[in-house]
Parts: sequence; structure tokens; C-alpha cells
Amino acid sequence: MDVGTVVAGVVAREPRAIARAISLVEDGDDGLPELSAGVFPHTGAAATIGLTGAPGVGKSTIATALVRIARADGRRVAVLAIDPTSPYTGGALLGDRVRMQEHATDPDVFIRSMATRGHLGGMSLAAPEAVRILDAAGFGLVIVETVGVGQAEIDVAAATDTTIVVLAPGLGDAIQMAKAGILEVADLFVVNKADRDGAGDVVRELRQMLHLGAARPWDPPVLATTAADGNGLDELWHEIDRHRAWLGSTGTLATDRETAVIHEVRALAAERLAGSVQAQLAADDALRARLRDRELDPYAAAEELIRRIGRA
Amino acid sequence: MDVGTVVAGVVAREPRAIARAISLVEDGDDGLPELSAGVFPHTGAAATIGLTGAPGVGKSTIATALVRIARADGRRVAVLAIDPTSPYTGGALLGDRVRMQEHATDPDVFIRSMATRGHLGGMSLAAPEAVRILDAAGFGLVIVETVGVGQAEIDVAAATDTTIVVLAPGLGDAIQMAKAGILEVADLFVVNKADRDGAGDVVRELRQMLHLGAARPWDPPVLATTAADGNGLDELWHEIDRHRAWLGSTGTLATDRETAVIHEVRALAAERLAGSVQAQLAADDALRARLRDRELDPYAAAEELIRRIGRA
Repeated sequence: MDVGTVVAGVVAREPRAIARAISLVEDGDDGLPELSAGVFPHTGAAATIGLTGAPGVGKSTIATALVRIARADGRRVAVLAIDPTSPYTGGALLGDRVRMQEHATDPDVFIRSMATRGHLGGMSLAAPEAVRILDAAGFGLVIVETVGVGQAEIDVAAATDTTIVVLAPGLGDAIQMAKAGILEVADLFVVNKADRDGAGDVVRELRQMLHLGAARPWDPPVLATTAADGNGLDELWHEIDRHRAWLGSTGTLATDRETAVIHEVRALAAERLAGSVQAQLAADDALRARLRDRELDPYAAAEELIRRIGRA
Repeated sequence: MDVGTVVAGVVAREPRAIARAISLVEDGDDGLPELSAGVFPHTGAAATIGLTGAPGVGKSTIATALVRIARADGRRVAVLAIDPTSPYTGGALLGDRVRMQEHATDPDVFIRSMATRGHLGGMSLAAPEAVRILDAAGFGLVIVETVGVGQAEIDVAAATDTTIVVLAPGLGDAIQMAKAGILEVADLFVVNKADRDGAGDVVRELRQMLHLGAARPWDPPVLATTAADGNGLDELWHEIDRHRAWLGSTGTLATDRETAVIHEVRALAAERLAGSVQAQLAADDALRARLRDRELDPYAAAEELIRRIGRA
């Protein structure tokens, strides 16, 4: 399938073409600029949701529940689980897909784990491109789930329209969340496994920490859910809708999206330029020897390589 | 204090100068290239250890214990806790320092939380520079502790000579670790809180997963510790020594360090170039309008900006 055929298939909502397009992103294929240019005019309609939180808090269960509610509402929905590749698992994690089996035969649901190590820019560049493919393929709702609670994962979740941070009692308290810089990117907090001991404490602690910061135009609600039993999910859906309405009515949606695309262009350009720098480093034995012998420090080496690119 | 004075003070092992130098890294100060050039010739002697793992597994307790053992061994030791800034905490987390209070008055111990949002390249560029400062200041052992288990945090820990991944029963199982891509960067695994239920299962599960992968020249040991009671720490210290001896005898230390510095130069150059790209984007209203109106996709915009830098 050439890239032009993939683009046409995506826009025509063909599952095989959509899967192929995401694989091109995953692999960092040479055809990405063409793919990107092809789908871009067809994007902008999807509402995007980011789900992040520590391993084990129940993000996939919540994603599955949101898919169910969205389908009952007649919406087409896609879930993209960002999954750092590991040679131990081959990069394809069955877990998320198995849990989502109830939606496996629904043509209006698309679920995909995406490994990102093939893409030079990592998940922060692969994720928005994959989201645009799903957007162009007519999924009105795109849920991006990230694994882990590091900076890159938080950045990916924060680049969506509505960012949901999931916690659970006993799995990293609110102070740990603050350490991870997660409090300020959340539009909604979910304390899942609310039937467990300590859930009320997590909710209270979180609300207190939120009120320590400066007042913000949107005050992120803190919800308690037991996703495995379906408790609290309708309220979560309602709050997602309320946040989306707020984004639209205040003009925040447009400014947030412009900020995100500028950030992405900056990172894409940097990644391409870094490729040239790396090629020069690989070819220049003398420069590497000077680094190794501590005659030239990393900043000075970077400066020298930048000058060469300017001259090229 | 000008940068030249800071460099002289670092090399003379003055605590105030060392603290100032790390603050310059933290803030992404304009003097960084000069600081980097000044300290670089004095580096290379320190052994570096990375400690990573989910929040709450006991990384700080293990770091404190390693400091105690290193001091009993007569070594000067520094701990750098990488701490993503949050407006809610002001970026300075008392927690790590309080737990390390027993070493507060020892001039041969340096403990510091480092926030990294001021540094444009984030923790992956700030951490190695801070480690070189501590190395140049004569700390024979430098321990880098990262918060969170995301890709960036794993990369920072993996850039040290010996990477220790800490787990605890009930806080993210081995499958979750595999998802986070953490298995392949570890030189040593520590299952802490080994007195809790399920610790033996975590050890077994981890060993099984490790043996699923291809055989590697270094087979990472899996240790059980109860750091709060001091159990298992001498064995951990012994294994760290054994790994270090292996790194030296096989030549792996030299090749790992060359790979790390090349990676860093690449990232530094990319970061500097991204700054030029961003400035051009900010100044070019027409280009931003074409992005917003979906006439120009992110890849094409990046390509156009790269061409301009080549012409500059």
C-alpha cells in the first residue's frame, strides 16, 4: 500500500488503512511527511482525551468504560495506548486489547497499542501524528492512554484537549503526584478503586494540594470512581463534557491547540536537525576523540556542529 | 560569583560553589557553556549510580543507606535527586533532604534536589551536566535518583554507569515494569520492602521475565532488601562493586560513556537549534496562520524552518 492509498483509506475510514497509517508512525517511516500532509486537512473535529497515572490505577478499565458510554451515545471512538517498546514483550502488549475485547467487533471502535521507539522523536512526536490519523478517520472521540508517570508521558497526555489524571489509594499519594509535576496539567482528577481503604483521604489530600496553588480559570474537579463496578463513570463523562464546553466557550480550545502544534513543529524541526548533528558526529573521528580525551566539552562540541549546519 | 569563580570553587571542593554551579544548571543559565568547559577536564573519576522506580518503593531510603556504606568505606559521595518543578511545591522538595538529615553535617556528603524546568533540555540534559560538576568536585560516588517511571526518568538513570531499578510488592508488578521499558536498562534490580507479602513473587516474576529476553553479557542480579531495617544493603553494595569491576574489565565503561556523551551532544545541539526554530515561528504570523488553517502540516512547517536555518 503506497502512502497516497493509505491516506485515501484513512479518510474513507477503512480499518486496514488506519492500522497501516499508525504503523508508519510507529516505525518512523520515510513516508511520514506525505502521510502528515495528506491527513492534516481532514483533522480538527475530534475531541481528544488524555489518560495518565501510575501503573495499576485502572486507566485501561476507565478507557473501556468511556468507550462503552461514548458508543451508547452513538459516537465513534478510538483508543491509542502509548506503549514504550520492550524487547521482552515485543512491543505489542496484549493486555489492553484483551481488556477491550467487548468492543473488538464494533467497526466504530478502534483500539491500538502503539510502540514508539522506532519513531525518532519518541512518543511526544508519534502520539499527535497518530491522533490526527484517527481524527481524519472520523473518530469523534480519541482517547490517548500513557503508561508510566514520567515527564514525557505527562506531556503526551497534556497535549490532548482534556487531560485526566487517574490515582488509586495506596499507589502513590498526592505528594508523589506533585513531585511528578502532574497536578498542574490535569483538567480532571479521578480517584479510582474508591471502594478501597484510604480513597477518601486521597480525594481530600488532592483537593487540599490543588487549593495551595494559584487560582486557575478552570478548577479541576476531583471525582471518585470504582471503574470495575461502573461506579462514578457517568459523572466522569458529564465532567468531561462540561470541560469541553468550557474549552469551547472561552476560546481556550483554539489557543491550546495552537500552542500544541507550535510545540510539535519546534520538536519536529529539532529532531530532524539532531539527525544531521548525529551523522556529523558519527563521521568525525577526531571530534569524538577530543570529547573522549576531555579536550572539548559537550557544549562546545554542540556549538561546533551547529556552526557546520549553518554553513551547509 | 562569576562563572570562573564558580568553576575554581567547584574544583577546590567548596560547598557554596558546588551549590551555585548546580543552580546555574537548574536555571539554564547563559553561563552554562563556560561552566561546562571549565569543569570538563576535571571529570571522569566518579562512579555514577542511577536509582529509578515507581513513587513509594523506597529509593530515598536506599540512597541514604548507600551514602552510609560509602562513608564507612571512606568515600566522598553526592546524591542528586531529580525533581520536576511543580508550582505547588516550588520545586524544592524537603522530603529527600529531611530523610538524609543524618548526613547533613558531613562535609564529604553532598545532597541536593534539582528542579529541571528552567533548563531547556529538561532533566536529560541537566542531569549529566550536574553529575559532571559533582565529579569535578571530587565526589568519587555520585547517586542520581529520579522520580517517576517514565521514559525520560529511565533515560536519565540509564545514562549512569550502574543503573538500579527499585521495585516493591504491590507497587506495579513486573509486567508493568516491562511496559515502561525498564527491564532492559537495569544493571541491578532491588525488590525493596521484602518483608511484605508478595515480595518473593515479585523476585520470581522478575527473574522469569529477565530470562525471556536474549542473553546479555551482564546478567542483572535481582536482590531483596528491607532498606528501612538495613537488610540486604551490604549485598547490594557488593553487587554494585561487582558490576563496576565488570564494566572496567570488559571495556564496557569506556564505550558506555562515549555513547552517553555522543547522545548528549546530539540532544544539546537539537535543543539549541529548536530555540532558533521557535523564535522564527514566534515571529512569523503568516506561517502560524497557515498551520492554524490547516494549509501547512507540522512536518512541512518544520521542513520550511529548517531550510531557513540552513540559509542563515
